[in-house]
Amino acid sequence: MPAGQMNHNGVVAAAVPTYPPPESEAEESWLWAQIKAEAHRDAESEPALASFLYATVLSHPSLARSLAFHLANKLCSSTLLSTLLYDLFLHSFSSSPSLISAVVADLLAARQRDPACASFSHCLLNYKGFLAVQAHRVSHLLWTQNRRPLALALQSRIADVFAVDIHPAARIGKSILLDHATGVVVGETAVIGNNVSILHHVTLGGTGKAVGDRHPKIGDGVLIGAGATILGNIRIGEGAKIGAGSVVLIDVPPRTTAVGNPARLVGGKDTPSRHDDLPSESMDHTSFIQEWSDYII
Amino acid sequence: MPAGQMNHNGVVAAAVPTYPPPESEAEESWLWAQIKAEAHRDAESEPALASFLYATVLSHPSLARSLAFHLANKLCSSTLLSTLLYDLFLHSFSSSPSLISAVVADLLAARQRDPACASFSHCLLNYKGFLAVQAHRVSHLLWTQNRRPLALALQSRIADVFAVDIHPAARIGKSILLDHATGVVVGETAVIGNNVSILHHVTLGGTGKAVGDRHPKIGDGVLIGAGATILGNIRIGEGAKIGAGSVVLIDVPPRTTAVGNPARLVGGKDTPSRHDDLPSESMDHTSFIQEWSDYII
Amino acid sequence: MPAGQMNHNGVVAAAVPTYPPPESEAEESWLWAQIKAEAHRDAESEPALASFLYATVLSHPSLARSLAFHLANKLCSSTLLSTLLYDLFLHSFSSSPSLISAVVADLLAARQRDPACASFSHCLLNYKGFLAVQAHRVSHLLWTQNRRPLALALQSRIADVFAVDIHPAARIGKSILLDHATGVVVGETAVIGNNVSILHHVTLGGTGKAVGDRHPKIGDGVLIGAGATILGNIRIGEGAKIGAGSVVLIDVPPRTTAVGNPARLVGGKDTPSRHDDLPSESMDHTSFIQEWSDYII
Amino acid sequence: MPAGQMNHNGVVAAAVPTYPPPESEAEESWLWAQIKAEAHRDAESEPALASFLYATVLSHPSLARSLAFHLANKLCSSTLLSTLLYDLFLHSFSSSPSLISAVVADLLAARQRDPACASFSHCLLNYKGFLAVQAHRVSHLLWTQNRRPLALALQSRIADVFAVDIHPAARIGKSILLDHATGVVVGETAVIGNNVSILHHVTLGGTGKAVGDRHPKIGDGVLIGAGATILGNIRIGEGAKIGAGSVVLIDVPPRTTAVGNPARLVGGKDTPSRHDDLPSESMDHTSFIQEWSDYII
Amino acid sequence: MPAGQMNHNGVVAAAVPTYPPPESEAEESWLWAQIKAEAHRDAESEPALASFLYATVLSHPSLARSLAFHLANKLCSSTLLSTLLYDLFLHSFSSSPSLISAVVADLLAARQRDPACASFSHCLLNYKGFLAVQAHRVSHLLWTQNRRPLALALQSRIADVFAVDIHPAARIGKSILLDHATGVVVGETAVIGNNVSILHHVTLGGTGKAVGDRHPKIGDGVLIGAGATILGNIRIGEGAKIGAGSVVLIDVPPRTTAVGNPARLVGGKDTPSRHDDLPSESMDHTSFIQEWSDYII
Amino acid sequence: MPAGQMNHNGVVAAAVPTYPPPESEAEESWLWAQIKAEAHRDAESEPALASFLYATVLSHPSLARSLAFHLANKLCSSTLLSTLLYDLFLHSFSSSPSLISAVVADLLAARQRDPACASFSHCLLNYKGFLAVQAHRVSHLLWTQNRRPLALALQSRIADVFAVDIHPAARIGKSILLDHATGVVVGETAVIGNNVSILHHVTLGGTGKAVGDRHPKIGDGVLIGAGATILGNIRIGEGAKIGAGSVVLIDVPPRTTAVGNPARLVGGKDTPSRHDDLPSESMDHTSFIQEWSDYII
Repeated sequence: MPAGQMNHNGVVAAAVPTYPPPESEAEESWLWAQIKAEAHRDAESEPALASFLYATVLSHPSLARSLAFHLANKLCSSTLLSTLLYDLFLHSFSSSPSLISAVVADLLAARQRDPACASFSHCLLNYKGFLAVQAHRVSHLLWTQNRRPLALALQSRIADVFAVDIHPAARIGKSILLDHATGVVVGETAVIGNNVSILHHVTLGGTGKAVGDRHPKIGDGVLIGAGATILGNIRIGEGAKIGAGSVVLIDVPPRTTAVGNPARLVGGKDTPSRHDDLPSESMDHTSFIQEWSDYII
Repeated sequence: MPAGQMNHNGVVAAAVPTYPPPESEAEESWLWAQIKAEAHRDAESEPALASFLYATVLSHPSLARSLAFHLANKLCSSTLLSTLLYDLFLHSFSSSPSLISAVVADLLAARQRDPACASFSHCLLNYKGFLAVQAHRVSHLLWTQNRRPLALALQSRIADVFAVDIHPAARIGKSILLDHATGVVVGETAVIGNNVSILHHVTLGGTGKAVGDRHPKIGDGVLIGAGATILGNIRIGEGAKIGAGSVVLIDVPPRTTAVGNPARLVGGKDTPSRHDDLPSESMDHTSFIQEWSDYII
Repeated sequence: MPAGQMNHNGVVAAAVPTYPPPESEAEESWLWAQIKAEAHRDAESEPALASFLYATVLSHPSLARSLAFHLANKLCSSTLLSTLLYDLFLHSFSSSPSLISAVVADLLAARQRDPACASFSHCLLNYKGFLAVQAHRVSHLLWTQNRRPLALALQSRIADVFAVDIHPAARIGKSILLDHATGVVVGETAVIGNNVSILHHVTLGGTGKAVGDRHPKIGDGVLIGAGATILGNIRIGEGAKIGAGSVVLIDVPPRTTAVGNPARLVGGKDTPSRHDDLPSESMDHTSFIQEWSDYII
Repeated sequence: MPAGQMNHNGVVAAAVPTYPPPESEAEESWLWAQIKAEAHRDAESEPALASFLYATVLSHPSLARSLAFHLANKLCSSTLLSTLLYDLFLHSFSSSPSLISAVVADLLAARQRDPACASFSHCLLNYKGFLAVQAHRVSHLLWTQNRRPLALALQSRIADVFAVDIHPAARIGKSILLDHATGVVVGETAVIGNNVSILHHVTLGGTGKAVGDRHPKIGDGVLIGAGATILGNIRIGEGAKIGAGSVVLIDVPPRTTAVGNPARLVGGKDTPSRHDDLPSESMDHTSFIQEWSDYII
Repeated sequence: MPAGQMNHNGVVAAAVPTYPPPESEAEESWLWAQIKAEAHRDAESEPALASFLYATVLSHPSLARSLAFHLANKLCSSTLLSTLLYDLFLHSFSSSPSLISAVVADLLAARQRDPACASFSHCLLNYKGFLAVQAHRVSHLLWTQNRRPLALALQSRIADVFAVDIHPAARIGKSILLDHATGVVVGETAVIGNNVSILHHVTLGGTGKAVGDRHPKIGDGVLIGAGATILGNIRIGEGAKIGAGSVVLIDVPPRTTAVGNPARLVGGKDTPSRHDDLPSESMDHTSFIQEWSDYII
Repeated sequence: MPAGQMNHNGVVAAAVPTYPPPESEAEESWLWAQIKAEAHRDAESEPALASFLYATVLSHPSLARSLAFHLANKLCSSTLLSTLLYDLFLHSFSSSPSLISAVVADLLAARQRDPACASFSHCLLNYKGFLAVQAHRVSHLLWTQNRRPLALALQSRIADVFAVDIHPAARIGKSILLDHATGVVVGETAVIGNNVSILHHVTLGGTGKAVGDRHPKIGDGVLIGAGATILGNIRIGEGAKIGAGSVVLIDVPPRTTAVGNPARLVGGKDTPSRHDDLPSESMDHTSFIQEWSDYII
């Protein structure tokens, strides 16, 4: 059994005993039961937080309603009322069940990949990256329904409240971790695959040269380090790693590491060091850089 | 007819047929009429947003009042009431008409340069960079009127709400685009010319060595890529480009490109590749870097 | 008398005549008297701000109550009421007087190191870095008292409101300056010494490889430039400087400068140029880089 | 054609052309269409009110959702969030359709009986008596579902916001007009029939002597004048009139008028002057008193 | 010189030394100066109130702006924003200067007639009757401008917030005192003259019999005691007194007293006891009743 | 054992087993434990209310803090922040423990006298009369401390929020029940004894004739029925009853009943029917009127 898996099992085993089959209704029920149990435990041990936990989690019959309530109260303003947003989120979640499957997948991803993620409810309540992505999914739904002004207004609230600026047209997969999240910018024609982990201050930006398809395409299982800037209609291949602070303007082949400003592929153009486990899951976003920095300093 | 103009006309022609003369009152009226028409169209197609659009745009007799209302509601807090801020913005806009000329110029700049800017009203309502700059102009006015504590309090609200931190003393020209804007920091003695485009996470910072004039001077038509850090009392010459993620500590000559950390002038010290169109308008902030990265990797 | 001290005295002398002994009760009283005097002066010269100044400063009998009030009103939300947070801050400040000593030390640090810091009250009221650090100290106290869900909820509010994301478990010393502060991320096992100055967009992040001790340890007197990313359980020695935009993955010896992406120690591995004054106090975070950039370009 | 209907048609004919059958779904649809048309007309003629009208009426797909939204925003407080109340009202209205039939009946009653009721939307949006009764119906539903603490909390909000204090256990019929409504108090075991009109400051109170059934029973078609105080488990017979300012402690037979403090039956005990039309509909609540006053003065 | 006048002078002389000519601009300036002086004195003696006083009075350049600000913050709701109301009040006050003359007259009336009115600023800030009347005057202005939906929405807010329900069409004179004010109801076709004093729970209601002119006409100098109910298109002659708790359905001749339920003219129909001083100014609303009660008990 | 006591024990016995000695600290602890137990039970049975109950009751360590929190959130406005009021209430309660003794006594009074008072927590949370009286006690304390502007501002908030208008100078005893409370007005020089029960719409008003002592003095154990108006510096003797809707302008001897408008002493001037139990406790406020009305009709 590879160490990575061991490690993974080791972390999760204690807190999350038996997983139901992924993407089943059972999975959502199981996760919601976990969250309620966590919130109950926390409400009992911390009366000062109990009001918040009851309002946001414990008074709701489902994960969808809890999240709709929480997002509505986070994103509302004096000119966009919480009741209006609540309606919008509730309706989106009930008409598009895949949104909730994605919520479930993202919660599991955060819990498995982020050592600081102490519980599912912690992620649900406190992770601005998680909340920004879920709100984005609704703004994306609105965009595809040709309700663009509303989609853009929602994007604006997400950008104000979470400092995460994702264009409603951007397409984002499942099992996404936006860790810390402050300052993330994702452009209109960007695409992010499944199982991707993105740290804060990451930009998937345009090049300004074109009106059309002009933003990066991020493959499955990619890990993008803090402060990385990826610009233009380029492809980051599946399982690639982008080092913290890198400026990437060229395609990165699958399972390859890019580092530096401007980014270079570690090991040279021809023989990039391939890595076998998914970097987005191991979250190992420095080992390769360290090699590289050892190499050049 | 040069390509740049062609390009410019091409993008804008469809949506913005005949421009009135720039900086005239006619221009402001024309723009306000556009914005109201857009808002009307959106309110009709999207009832869920109509309340917001009426409150913020359609119930107001002028662009100045609409913007004052919107900024007041965005920037207010439990200790700085919206009515107080509304008063402040209204009074500033009516006593200093040049503030509104700058609003007009910035709206036109966003619409022309940012392919994601779908309409003038979208920029007016949703662009945190646009809103932060307009609020900064009022805080700058207060600063010049020696109302410094109020100017600083306003700066603080802008920094909290938009994550854009511009010292009230900083001087900023017209036709400014602050795209995405999160994390922009502009120091006390910084100066930004006209027609400048600045992406998010850009710092125009001090060097900490001096109390006096210690921040960058940005010439007209400059384009500063995402995450660039420009430090010290240096000059970025007109029409220069600063690559994304660059750290710039030295003067950059006009129409020259600087990239990298620490930034180098592309093509070497002696023969920087001069570019003829204004980079802030083409928003082409990667072609030069790509050359460079091809060059070095 | 060394120039640095001269300089220091020169700046401060006019406004801050005779300092009481540090960390004494007298120091707090003296500072609080200064703040009230400043607020009084500002309230008189600026009626539009007087309401804010009375609510936040002038109606309170102590620095602790003023700060508790201000933080509660800044960090509250529709689901975490200001009265609840006010209670929490008041109780923390009165039960842990060292929190207020740290407030005092940080206010003095901001005033001495940041040329844009016009007055103590300006820092107290408007500096999001200052406010984020004080709120973090309370969340850290809660963490050490095993009130983790509340600590994490508070972290989340700080991250939303100030765009400063500090894990409650992180340990932070005194006389800290978080300048501009937007985008600062500090991980769970990070430690920051005394007299440290940190600019905005700085990350003290993990490497993702381990669950345990995985974040940087920052020595006393360190200066970390804007946008620097420091990753992993490494040591930044006392009095070191980290250049703006650097990506640091290796230990940095005391009084040494690291710059670049990936960061290298200036002057080569063997003979780093040692600096004698504390860089966090001189805030000189470019001279060394300039040398270096001259060196390499 | 009977005079009552004539009268009724005469008042209503101009504004309300052809009524659908009462209590049908068609009636609700018809009324909702009227309300939207009125709100549209008002939004167009009054931009300053358009935001309110869109938020409260025009953005909603049904009368139930519009009313739930409006009540939630009226009755919310910092400790009872609008989203929570919205949920509660929405769920109550959808699970108990008779609540909406009663809303329809009350709107028609207000429009027909109150000459100052200019439109259905005016009543829906602005009549505190109407709103208090609809909110009471939900608190009564909660009471019957044994959710008493929530029912009482809702009563408390209605009493604070509208100054109308109706015990959740009180049973109230349909086609109720609570005109002006301020100060109305209705006790726990009170019963109000159908087609009743009650002016402001009216008390249906207990006598304090008993724990059990101790409040008045108001028959169908009764009119209770402003400031009347009716105390104890007494019966006000159908079609009776209670004069303004009366204090009633004894049963009032059907179609009989009671006036004065303490109230006496006009015409003497034996020969009360019977009236043929329903006083609650004619709203004639002074003619009889005038007779009486002529009689006694 | 009669004792009453002596008394009256005695009260006022100390606090209000030299009145400027009534209804002059000088009078308004003088009053505004008084209010600012009072607010200054109170802010200095009571820091806990200083924030409120600065926000509401001391930061404003005129009585009109202060009152507009105060009313906007009192009457706003989540769906009627304070900035919108502020605009409305400011615009009304500046376009209709007679509104401010009436404000001045009402402030003087409260100060002279109500022994509990400690200062002008106390009335301006705290008297719900005063505030309700000023807001009504704006809703009446809107009504006369055919902006009826907005007028009715404003009436509704006044009724919710102050529990004072005055139809926008009602016409109200100057020098009005609405003392305590809770529960006052004034119907659509009611007219109130000048120098009228009205206690709380007073109703000027309709009789329900007619659509047209159906509410009372109150002459100059009338005093209406607490809880009086006056119904129908009747005339209360100038200088009349209406006893507390009276129910009045018949005309009351000038300088005559009506008491009781139903009200009778004191002294019998033919020889009402005429009073020479204006009862609304002496506020003597019991002496006559006492006579009467002595008479009948 | 007298019947009254029996009755009293009968009602209370089930819910309130063994009372600790009155006015002891034990009594407060006992009551607070009851309230927390009730709130716990309700929070468990009603998740939708749990957030409110935790915020308002269950997160607080004492009755004083819970009440301070609740009042602050009820009475705050956009210009009088909840944190400021919270401070004020907390400080008043801790510096004047007799305020909390009165809270305890009033809670017991409501529970014993009002059959609709289902629990102590119901009264604490939902009774506007109870809350208005507690807030008045603080405004009275401020008045006696010569903090009159703040006392008056607090009175104004109580009048707006609860429609209960009690002058801060009025002196009110213990074990007070203000039932329903809407519209209660109590003048500056009024005095209310202990064990008094007052229904809604009751006025203890002045006569307008004097500046000095001009309001009623209400003896111990008095019961005042709904809508009663008591005017002038008269004495309502201990254990007297005032009938609903009465207008009282003359002294009422102890243990005597006054009814009617104008009020007469039941049984004639010479032989008022004396009652032996305290009417404020039996809350029997109609039996005597009924006799009377039987008598006169």
